[in-house]
Amino acid sequence: MHAITIPEPGGPEALVWADVPDPVPGDGEVLVEVVAGAVNRADVLQRQGFYNPPAGASPYPGLECAGRILALGPGVTGWAVGDEVCALLAGGGYAEKVAVPAGQLLPVPKGIGLVEAAALPEVACTVWSNVFMIAHLRPGETFLVHGGSSGIGTMAIQLAKAVGARVAVTAGSPEKLARCAELGADILINYREQDFVEEVRENTAGAGADVILDLIGAKYLDRNVRALAVNGRLAIIGLQGGAKGELNLGALLTKRAAVTATSLRGRPLGEKAAIVAAVREHVWPLIEEGVVRPVVDRTLPMAEAAEAHRVLESSGHVGKVLLAAPLAGA
Amino acid sequence: MHAITIPEPGGPEALVWADVPDPVPGDGEVLVEVVAGAVNRADVLQRQGFYNPPAGASPYPGLECAGRILALGPGVTGWAVGDEVCALLAGGGYAEKVAVPAGQLLPVPKGIGLVEAAALPEVACTVWSNVFMIAHLRPGETFLVHGGSSGIGTMAIQLAKAVGARVAVTAGSPEKLARCAELGADILINYREQDFVEEVRENTAGAGADVILDLIGAKYLDRNVRALAVNGRLAIIGLQGGAKGELNLGALLTKRAAVTATSLRGRPLGEKAAIVAAVREHVWPLIEEGVVRPVVDRTLPMAEAAEAHRVLESSGHVGKVLLAAPLAGA
Repeated sequence: MHAITIPEPGGPEALVWADVPDPVPGDGEVLVEVVAGAVNRADVLQRQGFYNPPAGASPYPGLECAGRILALGPGVTGWAVGDEVCALLAGGGYAEKVAVPAGQLLPVPKGIGLVEAAALPEVACTVWSNVFMIAHLRPGETFLVHGGSSGIGTMAIQLAKAVGARVAVTAGSPEKLARCAELGADILINYREQDFVEEVRENTAGAGADVILDLIGAKYLDRNVRALAVNGRLAIIGLQGGAKGELNLGALLTKRAAVTATSLRGRPLGEKAAIVAAVREHVWPLIEEGVVRPVVDRTLPMAEAAEAHRVLESSGHVGKVLLAAPLAGA
Repeated sequence: MHAITIPEPGGPEALVWADVPDPVPGDGEVLVEVVAGAVNRADVLQRQGFYNPPAGASPYPGLECAGRILALGPGVTGWAVGDEVCALLAGGGYAEKVAVPAGQLLPVPKGIGLVEAAALPEVACTVWSNVFMIAHLRPGETFLVHGGSSGIGTMAIQLAKAVGARVAVTAGSPEKLARCAELGADILINYREQDFVEEVRENTAGAGADVILDLIGAKYLDRNVRALAVNGRLAIIGLQGGAKGELNLGALLTKRAAVTATSLRGRPLGEKAAIVAAVREHVWPLIEEGVVRPVVDRTLPMAEAAEAHRVLESSGHVGKVLLAAPLAGA
């Protein structure tokens, strides 16, 4: 098969479409013929040599895909050859085939195309596990998501609105904020021109945000704590603004607040399967009802993954950037 | 009545036993004749002028007491004049009488003396709410409590052991560590001579502590994060080592860990009542069975509260320092 390989870490040009051996599904895994993969920021870090795959994972980038089941490994039940699926991966989504633990498979939701379905697993699992399973966002609460127009952001806005929360977003342009508003965001904050702490406070009668989903990390840590409400929960899922920051424990204590940080990729199989099952139970019906929909910025040929990384790194996109495998057009 | 007043913030001598008006129980409150109060570190901060009572609370120090119900305010049910009780307070425990919201009352556990019962409310509510309601310590997990010989520490060791956790403690002398061992602590760390990060790791096959209860704050923040296990929870309840510290979000993210900080005093009545009810349900039976017992360092006359503060500030005690009201000896 073909896959995007990384012979040497570096810029987008480090991504090389190459002929590689087919993966073999192990115990409890299925082999998926990939129709489309999707691009995540973690893939950029992996390309740069800063985020190696966990032990046992595919060496190729790609944390999610959609496609058809080609073969079942030993011990897999509940799935059949030919099933259309999308999947959360520990790697290997930038390839024509990938072996996936069965617990990380999801059916393609009714009404969603097979390519489009590749936009769903990573954002649905990340948002559901952090905002709902960890931070327990409740109806009527205020939710702030940074990077509202990102793949994560576009899913987070829709899910938070679907459960009855009020949604604040930050983004870097009026155009991106307008897209967030179309998805349901109530409070639009241009981080280049406005202070999100002030804006959140002004729009909540001084109370602050009950839950914040953050991918900036250190650079926003103090401001995020200031923007939290009493009993607030700050869920950090990325460190684009650095890993070490000053935490004001006095403010945290006065607010009885919590800071959590997680990533999906390194979790044990059992935890991933539990998250995928929760997403299937809670998120999939919302997608099938049309309440929540995948937001796709563009779809590029998989062999042009370098261009997809350039799009992601220039932050010119809204929603997900997908990679169509050669088969998808065949 | 008499109460300990603080005419001017300062050292222990700032505590003045004085004649003051009796409190009047408001809606949903009872008036308690105090038999004993207990000393907490927060009282020292209040004496120094750094921790003013929340709005509506008694101006006198004292976050817990035991005694007898003298009168019921409007709307109180389930309690009767003469009942022996202990109570969580927002202030006013260093006094002969105190008005208490009924939701913060607990019966004196069977087998516990009325003076001794004053040692229970604050530590039981703080430990239960943080270690169990927030951090969800589970059987088989490893629990680290700093200041194992403090009032909080002595309760935390016993409760964690009672639910089947493995308990590590830090303390500043072999004598204090020996007392922690008597209460059930498994891993004894002298913080003056040993690195608690290394000790916890060595005693958990490198895994770290699943839950840490900390009252040091900033000074221990980085080390506490390093001592946490994957999925670990750091619960901060005090800032004796400062309020602002560097948080390594990269380590937190890799461990999928959580940092929380809380205090009891400022919580709304409903939250306090929920914690008190949970303590009555889960902790009181353990005390009545003799599995968990109050640890009292000494009992001083309430008028000598200054001496009690000196004891607390010199850290010469193990467990709680109590203050007996004049009535207690009558």
